[in-house]
Amino acid sequence: MLPDRLRRLVQLLARLPGVGEKTAHRFALMFVQDPDFARDLANELAALPAWVGTCERCHGIAEVDPSGAFVCSICRDSRRDDQLLCIVARVQDQLSIERSGAMRGRYFILGSLLSPLEGIGPDDLPLEEIKRRCADLGVKEIIVATPPSVDGEATAFLLASELGKQGLVISRIASGVPHGGDLEFADQVTLGRAIVGRRGIDVSR
Amino acid sequence: MLPDRLRRLVQLLARLPGVGEKTAHRFALMFVQDPDFARDLANELAALPAWVGTCERCHGIAEVDPSGAFVCSICRDSRRDDQLLCIVARVQDQLSIERSGAMRGRYFILGSLLSPLEGIGPDDLPLEEIKRRCADLGVKEIIVATPPSVDGEATAFLLASELGKQGLVISRIASGVPHGGDLEFADQVTLGRAIVGRRGIDVSR
Repeated sequence: MLPDRLRRLVQLLARLPGVGEKTAHRFALMFVQDPDFARDLANELAALPAWVGTCERCHGIAEVDPSGAFVCSICRDSRRDDQLLCIVARVQDQLSIERSGAMRGRYFILGSLLSPLEGIGPDDLPLEEIKRRCADLGVKEIIVATPPSVDGEATAFLLASELGKQGLVISRIASGVPHGGDLEFADQVTLGRAIVGRRGIDVSR
Repeated sequence: MLPDRLRRLVQLLARLPGVGEKTAHRFALMFVQDPDFARDLANELAALPAWVGTCERCHGIAEVDPSGAFVCSICRDSRRDDQLLCIVARVQDQLSIERSGAMRGRYFILGSLLSPLEGIGPDDLPLEEIKRRCADLGVKEIIVATPPSVDGEATAFLLASELGKQGLVISRIASGVPHGGDLEFADQVTLGRAIVGRRGIDVSR
């Protein structure tokens, strides 16, 4: 029923995260019915790769600078603590941590976690690049903020054992009952972690 | 945190049906991390308005023909029954009906339903255009396939009273318990319609 080339557009749109054939179809119909919108989006997307890309230092999101280099605003910010490096799996995780305001150091985005199922082994992680980055910055402490999943824990363990050899202090973000969460509805693993990871209560303040 | 211009892309993407700020954000990040994908999609979208658009006859989806006119494959198909016209609200509805294989006539897509809440009154519906189309085709029967909602019913009623004056046979698609549906879980209105719209059982076949 649909023109062939529209089907090609649908296939492209279905590559967006969380978008299936049916949603892609709806998107495509909207583009057909609103050509101005299609044109506007086409222009933004076409221009995108020229001015925004992956940060050369941390693999976050960076705008191009006048010299043509891609360095993100965090890596450029001289007020950041060079001695503290936070390693995350994805750019989204970095953005979430930034919103929390609790991280004042630098970042490194892995891009992927160890995942035997997807064929991603230790050699696929940028360990050497992280070591170079630590040396360049003079990092003393690393916070591993990979997610508390099987792959996230395995990756954290690998990073800790590899980077621990360099004499760095390495910690892992806390895992437990979320703020505002109800103990009744927390799963067993989370509750177990909340107990094991308990902290002293400071009453001196 | 995000570059200003990336925020503009997020706002554009959030105009897609069913896409909120957060999903638009994920799409934008994917475009940043996969520039080839961004370029491919930009090219498809930029080319789109030149070769696909709204059918001049039925307002469905049409590819441009060598003369520069937009006429859809259904309107061009000479094997279709000119005497039967199906009026639907949206292109998606037309595609669904086509998939059912039960409609052998022509279509007309309204684009919108009567909707007092959205300020769409009888004058906003293309009644004159439908009348012209009926005259051009020599339509004898009209099937109103607007959805069985308040707005859909109101639109069907208006179409029936306006087009009925032209001496056309006008019917409405059946509303009732869907195929495979469970009576226990059908709502009252649907069950009421299924009873009122009951049909004789033909045992002669």
